[in-house]
Amino acid sequence: MTAVRPSGPLRLGMVGGGQDAFIGAVHRTAARLDGEWTLVAGALSSTPERALASGAALGLDRTYPTWEAMLAGELARPSGERIDAVSIVTPNHVHFPVARAFAQAGIHVICDKPLVHTSAQADELRRVAAQSGVVFAVTYNYSGYPLIRHARDLVRDGALGEIRKVIVEYHQGWLATRLEEQNSKQADWRTDPARSGVAGAVGDIGSHAEQLIATVTGLHLEALCADLTTFVPGRRLDDDASVLLRFQGGARGVLLCSQVALGEENALRLRVYGTHGSLAWDQEHPNQLHHVPRDAPRQTLTRGGPGLSAAAQAATRLPAGHPEAFLEAFANLYRGVAEAVRARAEGRAPDPLIAQFPDLTDGARGVHFIEKTVESSRSDRKWTDARWPG
Amino acid sequence: MTAVRPSGPLRLGMVGGGQDAFIGAVHRTAARLDGEWTLVAGALSSTPERALASGAALGLDRTYPTWEAMLAGELARPSGERIDAVSIVTPNHVHFPVARAFAQAGIHVICDKPLVHTSAQADELRRVAAQSGVVFAVTYNYSGYPLIRHARDLVRDGALGEIRKVIVEYHQGWLATRLEEQNSKQADWRTDPARSGVAGAVGDIGSHAEQLIATVTGLHLEALCADLTTFVPGRRLDDDASVLLRFQGGARGVLLCSQVALGEENALRLRVYGTHGSLAWDQEHPNQLHHVPRDAPRQTLTRGGPGLSAAAQAATRLPAGHPEAFLEAFANLYRGVAEAVRARAEGRAPDPLIAQFPDLTDGARGVHFIEKTVESSRSDRKWTDARWPG
Amino acid sequence: MTAVRPSGPLRLGMVGGGQDAFIGAVHRTAARLDGEWTLVAGALSSTPERALASGAALGLDRTYPTWEAMLAGELARPSGERIDAVSIVTPNHVHFPVARAFAQAGIHVICDKPLVHTSAQADELRRVAAQSGVVFAVTYNYSGYPLIRHARDLVRDGALGEIRKVIVEYHQGWLATRLEEQNSKQADWRTDPARSGVAGAVGDIGSHAEQLIATVTGLHLEALCADLTTFVPGRRLDDDASVLLRFQGGARGVLLCSQVALGEENALRLRVYGTHGSLAWDQEHPNQLHHVPRDAPRQTLTRGGPGLSAAAQAATRLPAGHPEAFLEAFANLYRGVAEAVRARAEGRAPDPLIAQFPDLTDGARGVHFIEKTVESSRSDRKWTDARWPG
Amino acid sequence: MTAVRPSGPLRLGMVGGGQDAFIGAVHRTAARLDGEWTLVAGALSSTPERALASGAALGLDRTYPTWEAMLAGELARPSGERIDAVSIVTPNHVHFPVARAFAQAGIHVICDKPLVHTSAQADELRRVAAQSGVVFAVTYNYSGYPLIRHARDLVRDGALGEIRKVIVEYHQGWLATRLEEQNSKQADWRTDPARSGVAGAVGDIGSHAEQLIATVTGLHLEALCADLTTFVPGRRLDDDASVLLRFQGGARGVLLCSQVALGEENALRLRVYGTHGSLAWDQEHPNQLHHVPRDAPRQTLTRGGPGLSAAAQAATRLPAGHPEAFLEAFANLYRGVAEAVRARAEGRAPDPLIAQFPDLTDGARGVHFIEKTVESSRSDRKWTDARWPG
Repeated sequence: MTAVRPSGPLRLGMVGGGQDAFIGAVHRTAARLDGEWTLVAGALSSTPERALASGAALGLDRTYPTWEAMLAGELARPSGERIDAVSIVTPNHVHFPVARAFAQAGIHVICDKPLVHTSAQADELRRVAAQSGVVFAVTYNYSGYPLIRHARDLVRDGALGEIRKVIVEYHQGWLATRLEEQNSKQADWRTDPARSGVAGAVGDIGSHAEQLIATVTGLHLEALCADLTTFVPGRRLDDDASVLLRFQGGARGVLLCSQVALGEENALRLRVYGTHGSLAWDQEHPNQLHHVPRDAPRQTLTRGGPGLSAAAQAATRLPAGHPEAFLEAFANLYRGVAEAVRARAEGRAPDPLIAQFPDLTDGARGVHFIEKTVESSRSDRKWTDARWPG
Repeated sequence: MTAVRPSGPLRLGMVGGGQDAFIGAVHRTAARLDGEWTLVAGALSSTPERALASGAALGLDRTYPTWEAMLAGELARPSGERIDAVSIVTPNHVHFPVARAFAQAGIHVICDKPLVHTSAQADELRRVAAQSGVVFAVTYNYSGYPLIRHARDLVRDGALGEIRKVIVEYHQGWLATRLEEQNSKQADWRTDPARSGVAGAVGDIGSHAEQLIATVTGLHLEALCADLTTFVPGRRLDDDASVLLRFQGGARGVLLCSQVALGEENALRLRVYGTHGSLAWDQEHPNQLHHVPRDAPRQTLTRGGPGLSAAAQAATRLPAGHPEAFLEAFANLYRGVAEAVRARAEGRAPDPLIAQFPDLTDGARGVHFIEKTVESSRSDRKWTDARWPG
Repeated sequence: MTAVRPSGPLRLGMVGGGQDAFIGAVHRTAARLDGEWTLVAGALSSTPERALASGAALGLDRTYPTWEAMLAGELARPSGERIDAVSIVTPNHVHFPVARAFAQAGIHVICDKPLVHTSAQADELRRVAAQSGVVFAVTYNYSGYPLIRHARDLVRDGALGEIRKVIVEYHQGWLATRLEEQNSKQADWRTDPARSGVAGAVGDIGSHAEQLIATVTGLHLEALCADLTTFVPGRRLDDDASVLLRFQGGARGVLLCSQVALGEENALRLRVYGTHGSLAWDQEHPNQLHHVPRDAPRQTLTRGGPGLSAAAQAATRLPAGHPEAFLEAFANLYRGVAEAVRARAEGRAPDPLIAQFPDLTDGARGVHFIEKTVESSRSDRKWTDARWPG
Repeated sequence: MTAVRPSGPLRLGMVGGGQDAFIGAVHRTAARLDGEWTLVAGALSSTPERALASGAALGLDRTYPTWEAMLAGELARPSGERIDAVSIVTPNHVHFPVARAFAQAGIHVICDKPLVHTSAQADELRRVAAQSGVVFAVTYNYSGYPLIRHARDLVRDGALGEIRKVIVEYHQGWLATRLEEQNSKQADWRTDPARSGVAGAVGDIGSHAEQLIATVTGLHLEALCADLTTFVPGRRLDDDASVLLRFQGGARGVLLCSQVALGEENALRLRVYGTHGSLAWDQEHPNQLHHVPRDAPRQTLTRGGPGLSAAAQAATRLPAGHPEAFLEAFANLYRGVAEAVRARAEGRAPDPLIAQFPDLTDGARGVHFIEKTVESSRSDRKWTDARWPG
């Protein structure tokens, strides 16, 4: 277990994530879990009234009606009281202006995924962040699981040999009916192109799947061939996708995602096959990682158990058999950002085992993936070039 | 458990399947398991010497040096002694001439899959079989599992509503190295285009996957988009394939197969998602079928347990918890063919719950699927028309 | 796959196992599966009429009205036609007289479990069999599973170190209601002390559990402490048991069995913990064996997969991933007996990897276990001496 | 997700749980996770130097050298700053004096399990707590899992009918060697009778198992029969136990626990069989609960999924498929205590769905169970009366 820092927690502000917003509460809990952050300021909703009410309900010290007011208000405070970082947990279309403004102002940014709507916006954020030197994290939270870090280290250390095939799936069933017509805030914005972006399921969950491949395998995409479908009548964005992948160097892959797969809850599963062995992981049973070396029996590695890499161990709070799960993985990102922020403040190098989190590279590459997937889906050509210039 | 028939077993001849041939022994055991068949004649190898030696090793009554000699020899016997059916368990390229000759002679045929090398051959077999009126089974053995029959009945009875997405995978790892150079008879012919046909993994296991979709869902393929790969250097046929599927009526699908997926043994898995629920089945744990009705918890149906269809029950020998497996499923096909053959001999309708087995329709459609998959793989167009004219 | 012997199958007679008798069909299928045996004679029921009708329904060559008639009839035949062995698949109370008579006559015996009602009967059978020199197998069929043989070899070779704790469970739910009043032949005799013996669940399934411990660990029981319960009102024998075990040398154990455990089908599960590691096996998923070496990840060994002992490999017909199950394990016993019988006839030593089957030692020890368990259950003393004098 | 309270978190003090103490960090994280508590004071170690160093390392506002000093110091503060509750996370022998003193002083108590060393101490605590009226929780944390609450509600609502058999196991392997000689603080005190109490594994984990039975089934123990073993040479307390249970009303049970079960991590598993169905739950996969209604397929209920009781839903933060685990379950107790404390302060009834936590009844009954188990283990009588007078 991480000790709470003697120097006390860092100060966090939040944009979005008011009452009824599922992901806001997740971020707040993740930030709080290790005692690394304390939420001190917020502009928690898109309407000033609800923003103020949400802040009051949370007992927030500094509640602002808008993110612009929050930025101004925080900048007006002495630096010893000002927020160290802002968490952006709004619907997708709000990410860009908020992230740009806070980054420009030198406030570190933790932004939900997918990063923004377009590659142009992503490039602009990368430019701004490079200029101001802020830490910028994108909460692809599944990369925070300890066994995903071990999987990455296994691949990097050659345990699987050369990668041949990658299969990643992310299946949910909650949008199998037209929930967006039934007063579901979650469904509403995710199926609205103006807020969600050019893709539905591909942006919301397919982008997690893409990031998981990139994190674990380090492979670079070369081309893809996508079949996007909207199964629910009247829906305006894809709710199902099947994508063939070709990687530079010859590996092949398949990325499947669906939000109409009844019976599936949050089934993010990764399989990687190489010339020396394979691995498999399932987010719904995140404390186990299956590894089969060539010509040997299947091994089930467990979080906290024997044989894990240093990074996997560093991301672990509890002994084996005492399961950790979604919130702990999410908290690993907040802990990683805290380490990066503190290191910068203290003028030292961050602990590389702790300061691990997806950043603007992941964020921008994810946007590019979404764009190329949609482009491929509309094309009659089999393969769409998907090399990321980033 | 099936009772052995008082009238005694039917007489079976076999072509191929001599010593060292894995699948020949499987067929013999499956034929024998329920006491429905007795092997009385064989031309068990492609060389007369080995054919005779294999027959002697098995203690066969009537051993022939070639299939031509067997056909002649059997036709020369009185009909009360002649074989009722021939099992063709040779490498693929031998299926066609043998099946045609025996079918023409009025001997029922049980032929391994894939049926033949070309659609033209398949059409010719269909013509011949229709003319002579023989029973003709193609041993897509996975369709013999009781819970696959229940899955089919669930879909047919509307338990899943309208099908939206089908995912079928068939993963093996045994060809991850160049086994065909290491004196493996199994690997040798499967990777040789002259014997295996135009496809490797797609023909050997992908065709099983296609047949499983067709059996369970009844969907008709409209178009497909295939990416076939040969990962092992020097190999002449595909050893990995990823195929996107579009079905008539709007359902989508994905068919994955690989023989280089290290760590996988014989991982044939089917998932079907509809508007009212979903199902999932895994050949390596064939006594369980997962069914999730919409808005209800996951149910695990078990072979022999409550809630199974009449056809699933009829395909079952043992009580729940006493697992049945590969050979029993295979034997269900032999039992089904026996019922069809007996019914024909007795001038009655066969018991529809028993006389279930893939036939020339499955066989010909499978060949068409293989051809279209290879065609698509070579094409730059995304979608290749895959409607089966049959 | 076993080749059928060129010398042809051995001749089997059967006592009991007529129509509606579940276990008779299991024995017949197991005997037939590898082509090692052919059923030629039978006295298949306790009433002459049903015995003859059952024989006719099976198309048996030689059907006898009683087992006495069968014994006389077979002895009257030339030795080249006489049955090689008799399978006794009657309710328990018939085992003793039939087994004694056939063994005395020099006919090999395959007898269902539990062997007999009393240790005195078991001793008498051992005396008779020793005198006549017949092969005598007791069909504790679960010991026929390949991975049970591997588990035994793992323990014997020291992979687990010194055994500390053994947990075996055998849970079923089919007798949770008073099925014996509902015209269930299976339930009727099993709950009748005159036919089943002094114990219900303990005799029917607990004895399998005891034999599994003995087979895998080789431990010798020292004392036991049993709590037998009859949950279903009106039932005359135990339908649930929990038994603490102490083994010679200091290991401890727990044996649980129940036939009123609703939701369980045939849940025979074994766990063995030693100073160097542990193993776990579940009959309902018999193609996997879990082995955890000390300080290492869990390994899942698979039937047909890498790392198996010679005996486990010899008990296997199919490649990994092509599951085998209950009937194949049962058939391994019939194959083992066939090898022992043939070796005796041929004056050679049997192949030790094949000729593996539980014998009168297992049978007699099992009867002693049942007696001691019932004795303990009636005692106020905690520990009942359970050392087997055999 | 729980909203952080607008009135701000409650103030928590902690006794024990300094650096290197696994469980102290767990309590702190659980307390913090929902924002219901803030740690403001601590006497974190048994030596003043380490207590102060631990407090400094955590950045605690009010660090005391001893728990006596903390009690005095907090009582000296104005009530608006004083700690609301104390968490006692020391080795067992310290629980009693600290709990008595703080309860007497009117400070609410959250005490780790097992509560105390003797029933006399437990009775004294109950007397004191009743007198002062404090809230007193005992952190049997596994009862905080949402699906354990659902299991309890299923039983209470009759879904299983009358309970017949309960099987609970708690297996660990971490004490399979003499870790207490290898500088392991955790192993050291747990195997020392002066600090741990009369039992080893039975007290440390068996007591969790007992509490789980009581919580879920509501059954009252009548008698037990225990076999306690010390497998590791030189160890002074039991490290393995097998206990037969008889409940009032006729149900039977088995409680197994071991800390030398190599290969097991934290395998707390519960199975309950009744006349109408059964349930099963495994702490290592806590987001699933298996329920088999009589004559129906197995259902797998999921945390966050359909069909859960109000209490199970109230204990849940995340949607189905987003797993929660050990810390979230632990936090449910802290959330429950917070609700009870707030309700008391506000003069209202606590929300019954939230204010759920084990209390002195569980604590005292647990101590009684430990005493009776040890007594039985030393007895030659089979059954030891285990009715709890409490």
